[in-house]
Amino acid sequence: MTSAVADVDLGPGAAVAVVDVGGTDTKTSMLDASGRLSEVVHSPTPRGPDVVERVVDGVVAHVEAMRAAGTPPQAVGLVVPGIVDSERGVAVHSENLGWRDVPYRELITARTGLPVGFGHDVATAGRAELVLGAARGERDVAVVVVGTGIAAALFVDGVPLLGHGWAGELGHSVVDPRGAHCVCGADGCLEAIASTAAIARRYAAVTGEAVAGSREVLERAQAGDARAREVWDGAIEALAAGIRQLAAILSPQVVVLGGGLSRAGDALFAPLTAAVARHVPPHRVPELRPAKVGAHAGLLGAALLGREAIA
Amino acid sequence: MTSAVADVDLGPGAAVAVVDVGGTDTKTSMLDASGRLSEVVHSPTPRGPDVVERVVDGVVAHVEAMRAAGTPPQAVGLVVPGIVDSERGVAVHSENLGWRDVPYRELITARTGLPVGFGHDVATAGRAELVLGAARGERDVAVVVVGTGIAAALFVDGVPLLGHGWAGELGHSVVDPRGAHCVCGADGCLEAIASTAAIARRYAAVTGEAVAGSREVLERAQAGDARAREVWDGAIEALAAGIRQLAAILSPQVVVLGGGLSRAGDALFAPLTAAVARHVPPHRVPELRPAKVGAHAGLLGAALLGREAIA
Repeated sequence: MTSAVADVDLGPGAAVAVVDVGGTDTKTSMLDASGRLSEVVHSPTPRGPDVVERVVDGVVAHVEAMRAAGTPPQAVGLVVPGIVDSERGVAVHSENLGWRDVPYRELITARTGLPVGFGHDVATAGRAELVLGAARGERDVAVVVVGTGIAAALFVDGVPLLGHGWAGELGHSVVDPRGAHCVCGADGCLEAIASTAAIARRYAAVTGEAVAGSREVLERAQAGDARAREVWDGAIEALAAGIRQLAAILSPQVVVLGGGLSRAGDALFAPLTAAVARHVPPHRVPELRPAKVGAHAGLLGAALLGREAIA
Repeated sequence: MTSAVADVDLGPGAAVAVVDVGGTDTKTSMLDASGRLSEVVHSPTPRGPDVVERVVDGVVAHVEAMRAAGTPPQAVGLVVPGIVDSERGVAVHSENLGWRDVPYRELITARTGLPVGFGHDVATAGRAELVLGAARGERDVAVVVVGTGIAAALFVDGVPLLGHGWAGELGHSVVDPRGAHCVCGADGCLEAIASTAAIARRYAAVTGEAVAGSREVLERAQAGDARAREVWDGAIEALAAGIRQLAAILSPQVVVLGGGLSRAGDALFAPLTAAVARHVPPHRVPELRPAKVGAHAGLLGAALLGREAIA
């Protein structure tokens, strides 16, 4: 499967081989010397005991294909999920992919001879929104990605706030101690109430009817289904509570919302903006904006990292 | 009234006139060339329409007294509450003291000819803990001050996280949407449940008996008063929830607890450490430590700022 690319460009510079390893899907593309991404190739993320070897093999094969095509990359940009130490180039931990302390930068440089820009998928996608997208020119920003899970990329004075890879786990901040039980063991995590998966799951639990996803819950709510409305409104209220926590603790000027849920548009942004403003702590009310770089923010961010890795 | 000073020193350097303007009390001291604070003088913080003039007059008088005594300061260190823009040297807003956009640095330099280090009281006190106290040598730190109010000084990679003066308002982060009503208008703010004032107030509301303060509520709980125990335990649970929010969003390695409540010692730290560990989000559990610089952290931090202001 391939997909078209957001209408964003990084400007002239080095060509970069870019790979965004997701929990389910891996996206591969290349940044050309004009600063645009080529078509994006989607493939299933490898699983199993040899996952690390297969991820590295995939990156190396991509670099070799670019060389064979006469467009050799000058760097690699690689982003992965989980806990990431971007300075050392190490994937510290992924529950989902089952790895721990993998020195990806070292492994890939050894096989390709190229510098490797390495980062966390959400943090890197957030950086693309900051540098190229919805938060361009802003300094204090949270990019909140609401998909199957919820995580945030945080920027203070324009600098990413990483906490050695542990920061930004907004999905596991408790918004209601009497709320739904979360896979992490706590009750009332934001992610257990407001992720796209949680919205579908909660509706199914209330009605006994399975739905395709959060989009269908929204459509049912808009068609007058009171139980769908309740689940949707509960998700909005939980997201507002999460954003108010960010406002109290960090006070971002802008909160960019990305991920699958943000495609709901006004049905999300109108009530969410109202809910955040209703009870924001005494102080700055953040401005909410939809993500702009969109589906390929991770790849664009990886391309930025790749170019920056060139000494 | 005067008080003795913590056993901490900044090392040899410039003499500084230091003033910590609190919501109730103003503390004045001087840092000598050996790096120690003199005895601290407490006076009521001025109130009323001429509050700014009187604060400035007080600082100027202190500088002149030091000059008259033959120990002229080379800088002023001034800290104030509210929203503070430490870079510009401006007190942006204090609800409590009723000022807005006061250029204290400029006003004091004009009257004394001295450079002025200017900062937020809690942020500055937190910095003293980072540089001189309980978090010495740490990089990702939250210093949570639990007194009449609750606020946090946050450090990421050793750098203060200020949000242009708006960050760290942990007291107004909601920990329980069905919790006690807060003066800020929201329900269930941490401060409305767990500040020293809230603990006393909640006990009085439940029992109809006034108490001197949170310390008396703790003493009654320890003596077997079940209602006091419930109020105390509720405060611990709320503080743990606030610290877990910090852990999810920022992931500090160390959380230093200061302010009046921290003097409860083991009665606070033992159950709080257990409650934080019980449900920390999937990731780093912060280490809790009592504040070390103690009651005069604001003055010591102001002294640091004063020395740094000398070009």
